[in-house]
Amino acid sequence: MKDLRKLCIHTITTKPWSIEEAAEHYATMGVGGITVWRDALEGRKISQVGDMLRKHQLDIVSLCRGGFFPAVSAQKRQAAIEDNKKAIEEAAALGAPLIVLVCGAEPAQSLATSRKQIREGIEALIPYAESHQVKLAIEPLHPMYAGDRSAVNSLSQANDMAEMIDSPWVGIAVDVYHLWWDDTLHSEIMRCGRNNHLFAFHICDWKVPTEDMLLDRGLMGEGCINIPEIRGWVEEAGFEGYHEVEIFSKRYWQMDQQVFLTKIKEAYIQYS
Amino acid sequence: MKDLRKLCIHTITTKPWSIEEAAEHYATMGVGGITVWRDALEGRKISQVGDMLRKHQLDIVSLCRGGFFPAVSAQKRQAAIEDNKKAIEEAAALGAPLIVLVCGAEPAQSLATSRKQIREGIEALIPYAESHQVKLAIEPLHPMYAGDRSAVNSLSQANDMAEMIDSPWVGIAVDVYHLWWDDTLHSEIMRCGRNNHLFAFHICDWKVPTEDMLLDRGLMGEGCINIPEIRGWVEEAGFEGYHEVEIFSKRYWQMDQQVFLTKIKEAYIQYS
Repeated sequence: MKDLRKLCIHTITTKPWSIEEAAEHYATMGVGGITVWRDALEGRKISQVGDMLRKHQLDIVSLCRGGFFPAVSAQKRQAAIEDNKKAIEEAAALGAPLIVLVCGAEPAQSLATSRKQIREGIEALIPYAESHQVKLAIEPLHPMYAGDRSAVNSLSQANDMAEMIDSPWVGIAVDVYHLWWDDTLHSEIMRCGRNNHLFAFHICDWKVPTEDMLLDRGLMGEGCINIPEIRGWVEEAGFEGYHEVEIFSKRYWQMDQQVFLTKIKEAYIQYS
Repeated sequence: MKDLRKLCIHTITTKPWSIEEAAEHYATMGVGGITVWRDALEGRKISQVGDMLRKHQLDIVSLCRGGFFPAVSAQKRQAAIEDNKKAIEEAAALGAPLIVLVCGAEPAQSLATSRKQIREGIEALIPYAESHQVKLAIEPLHPMYAGDRSAVNSLSQANDMAEMIDSPWVGIAVDVYHLWWDDTLHSEIMRCGRNNHLFAFHICDWKVPTEDMLLDRGLMGEGCINIPEIRGWVEEAGFEGYHEVEIFSKRYWQMDQQVFLTKIKEAYIQYS
């Protein structure tokens, strides 16, 4: 039977739990890794949270999230860079080797302009990322978020950007939810791996119907994404890291989280 | 001032109106063309509807919609082909030179399988389309519909399919709502034009936020799509046809439709 050593869970997946509760329950179940969302750190000394997670033998996979670079005013773009530096400091304090970037989009300007600002924002962060030994992963988001969340909407585009930036500190997070529909996905995953840009792999499922554009993600097996096939592709591309379960769901957040965690484990074993 | 001769409106845009009401109001306003949704024909003799539209000097641009080819069972796929033949007969009776295809997707099978079935379905229709002198336009749909409405989710994919089918009876409908986010859109529109596959051009806007995945399209100018830029691209690609306003909106359907029609006219002149 598949073990849970490569299973990582995002704290937002079990949002009703504090990070202390999440860590205890994940560890008890044998989950290997945890990705920490910044809201879970509020009011805590970050280095102590890192110690707590390591005491539970949870591998800290990444910090979510930086990004949101585009803005009409230069002042706001600078503020975004400062916030990303803060995220890098937090990741270093926590002991997370990676920050996931939701790159941002500004509906008042063209996608081309937003994409240029995203690249410039990431490039401005590289020295800080390197000095803190924290990598950055561009996460291409589903095209339905192109209006306001990310102007990077395909793996092809993320590959282009990572290749243009060309730094060992900048790579890509592949999330099946955002990319499953793309007929170039297999070849773009191979390209991503060849360039050593495949930094993270996120899983969940696309429900039919999807009732909310943000908060109705499905558990693996509940929708129409062929997760084992895409996992096979990332492995074929050389990826050996965690399979990170990232689910935003009003429905699951209303459930007893221990029951939900058991469902995650079963879905992970059976459908991913 | 921009005139309305290239403006075409889809009957579904003013859904609360019967086709007789729509025709009268569109014609009075000086709208050049009409695209007829099949539901608007219910209970009517189709050739008489065609006569009525021509009497109003409305150019009949297309019939919406055929498609929905993929299915797990061969029997259902055959039923879809039969329904598409019926749509071709309706288009011929109406005097519409084109049918728009929402190609369909079947969540119980892979996108690759659905895509193959779509191509086979369209190919099966070509002799019937030719004998009735009705063209077919593949409409690539936004990736958020890949689960259940269309497995054709980018213009690149639609171009591939139209080139593979390689018939003068099969081309593509470009809808800004589905395609605006794509960083390859300009080059794919050029490719589409070069191959004489650019059969139709649909406009509306992407609202931020979008509150419903199906029924919250915006009027031109209300969202973040640069419609004049994309219109410039289709014209650059040689397109000289209508600019078809296709808006599904609970909000606008609740409005007095004459007020809405005036808004469409103003938005068309100012933002498209």
